Amino acid sequence: MVYINENFTKLQGSYLFAEVSKRVKEYQQKNPSKKIIRLGIGDVTEPLPPSVIKGLEKAVYEMGEKETFQGYPPYEGYDFLRNIVAKVDFESRGVQISPEEIFISTGAKEDTANIQELFSINSRLAIPDPVYPVYVDSNVMAGRAGDFKDGRYDRVVYLPCTIDNNFSPALPGEKVDLIYLCFPNNPTGKALRREELKKWVDYARENGAIILFDAAYEAYIREEDIPHSIFEIEGAREVAIEFRSLSKTAGFTGTRCSYTIIPKSLVAFDKRGNKYGLNSLWLRRQSTKFNGVAYIIQKGAYQVFTEAGRREIKKIIDYYLENAKIIGNGIKSIGLSYSGGINSPYVWVKIPEGLTSWQFFDELLEKYQVVGTPGAGFGKCGEGYFRLTGFGKREDILEAVERLSKFKV
Amino acid sequence: MVYINENFTKLQGSYLFAEVSKRVKEYQQKNPSKKIIRLGIGDVTEPLPPSVIKGLEKAVYEMGEKETFQGYPPYEGYDFLRNIVAKVDFESRGVQISPEEIFISTGAKEDTANIQELFSINSRLAIPDPVYPVYVDSNVMAGRAGDFKDGRYDRVVYLPCTIDNNFSPALPGEKVDLIYLCFPNNPTGKALRREELKKWVDYARENGAIILFDAAYEAYIREEDIPHSIFEIEGAREVAIEFRSLSKTAGFTGTRCSYTIIPKSLVAFDKRGNKYGLNSLWLRRQSTKFNGVAYIIQKGAYQVFTEAGRREIKKIIDYYLENAKIIGNGIKSIGLSYSGGINSPYVWVKIPEGLTSWQFFDELLEKYQVVGTPGAGFGKCGEGYFRLTGFGKREDILEAVERLSKFKV
Repeated sequence: MVYINENFTKLQGSYLFAEVSKRVKEYQQKNPSKKIIRLGIGDVTEPLPPSVIKGLEKAVYEMGEKETFQGYPPYEGYDFLRNIVAKVDFESRGVQISPEEIFISTGAKEDTANIQELFSINSRLAIPDPVYPVYVDSNVMAGRAGDFKDGRYDRVVYLPCTIDNNFSPALPGEKVDLIYLCFPNNPTGKALRREELKKWVDYARENGAIILFDAAYEAYIREEDIPHSIFEIEGAREVAIEFRSLSKTAGFTGTRCSYTIIPKSLVAFDKRGNKYGLNSLWLRRQSTKFNGVAYIIQKGAYQVFTEAGRREIKKIIDYYLENAKIIGNGIKSIGLSYSGGINSPYVWVKIPEGLTSWQFFDELLEKYQVVGTPGAGFGKCGEGYFRLTGFGKREDILEAVERLSKFKV
Repeated sequence: MVYINENFTKLQGSYLFAEVSKRVKEYQQKNPSKKIIRLGIGDVTEPLPPSVIKGLEKAVYEMGEKETFQGYPPYEGYDFLRNIVAKVDFESRGVQISPEEIFISTGAKEDTANIQELFSINSRLAIPDPVYPVYVDSNVMAGRAGDFKDGRYDRVVYLPCTIDNNFSPALPGEKVDLIYLCFPNNPTGKALRREELKKWVDYARENGAIILFDAAYEAYIREEDIPHSIFEIEGAREVAIEFRSLSKTAGFTGTRCSYTIIPKSLVAFDKRGNKYGLNSLWLRRQSTKFNGVAYIIQKGAYQVFTEAGRREIKKIIDYYLENAKIIGNGIKSIGLSYSGGINSPYVWVKIPEGLTSWQFFDELLEKYQVVGTPGAGFGKCGEGYFRLTGFGKREDILEAVERLSKFKV
């Protein structure tokens, strides 16, 4: 008799976005004539920028010719991509990150899910609530989160993010080892100012903790004084790993390319006190369990960082940010409040009293055929909220707002 | 102080192919004028087939247009790909596998490394020796392999594959839960006939074990009576998971697409005896920690299964098989023996007495600038052997054989 990893049985329900998809699919099957507008899963809708298309085309051509064909990619990513990332994302902002500290991957989801493998099973976790479900679930599956009781895993230190603290979590009240942070935040849309982020770096340095910083939405930052990278904060090189992605930056949700920054100066210890570089440990992990990102995709990704590519993606992001603004205004006009929508594609709506967020989800789907994501799916503190996204075609966004204008609080 | 996952410290040396690359790189840096012929890492050299290139081109075009742009792929893969895989790889051979049992992924390496996550940490493993290092290393990192003593992990049941058993391992002498098998085999080149494979399925059924079957080289099978899939054996649907890849089948080592078959009839248990479908459990794993394979890549992969695609890949594989034959003949002519090279791209050379396989590696690199893979890198029973591969350009293969003809036993 073969036994399963029983940690899987501690997962709550199905993966959030799988559940959203399922309900939408069922509704559509029952109501095939209704046009559903999806502002739920946070998926981009604009095509890949022209420079990226050109890069992909050229790489496809190369793969068909004897002289330019490419076999196994390097586990860490091609140097051409690591070099330009280091230059454009970091050097240009005065941040000291070398190409060897950058690991190319197929997704920030994959990397934020896999990074926990490097750490002791006894590590104490601090995780914001609400939060992107992958941080919690990947630790549940590994057995690091403990048991689920009263809506919480008992070995996780939750960091509530609510209207009361303006969605900026307080430092943990007890000792933790690993701190997951995501800013600009998914789902609340909150971005942290330099001083707010510095507080976390200082905390991690003083308490021997490591910050796992998800910067998947950094390209949406438009205001000054909001760091695009945690490495803009002094001292972060000794306490942080940063995850970045082209999914929301350049429309790569269906093209799959991301990168993770692990400074060579970041270390952890074994029980005897020996020091291990996490950069090397991750390379060992990646070279053993991963075989790199397709050449074609990395060649497309490269173009994102060229001058033309950067111009093109800025235009697309501006478009999504304008969408978010339109949604926000629509939400306000029906008497609901929201946060986010600035420096972020996410509009975090406070839903009317008396409705759970899944009830609100069902009501919006059934009455208005508008799909959002129930706040409760992101954690206990997400109850009472609802996530809408600026990803979508302008005409759909306008139609969704028009439909929702009939909503009665 | 943050602690690492100490299981990582139990890994032996660096990942085999990373070590091979390192030594080759060092040699090349010291001897920049020497032309090195790489028959080591088992990487393909022929360009992607024309049909695949056309599929990729069309998909790139689609990603640049509003109407045809694709966002997040399904976690399990696109139906268009799962359907054609079910039809071409299974239905056409009379094997009952439905599209819902096929999961598209970025690599058989990734999937064979990740599959262990589904099982109890106490599962007993049977692993052939020599073997593709990923099966062992992924379990070491998870803490399932025990400690390394005298060249062996003490919780793994090794299945020796040597000249004495004609590289066909004997059934385990003690109770095991998970059995890793790879046929046609990497590194020995051995392929199992129907009766030999049936022995394993019967054993798994009688002993409540699960077989993790790596069929990455099935496209190299040319002889009758050798199953291309373990599901050609009656009863395998209740005891096996199969891993397949386009890397060696269609030149996808740098393009990254594979697929894993988990029958809905395959179950495992929790401690209370509750039954869990492994197909669902894997979907939960994938939807939580993976975000699917790029649309472009899946569109290219689709073409491999079309009539034109199949014709094209057969031609490429025939070319590699002819290479393997040339290498085999070369090896024979210098007085060494080998196995494999039929139904497999791998030539498994018995090296002269008195040399370790790493010494043989260094000698071939330094004297002849020919790179192979030391058998010891695949396990204790691989010592005394050396892996050469039929992947390479014909002119390089001929030159390597010519250079090696000067070898003195």
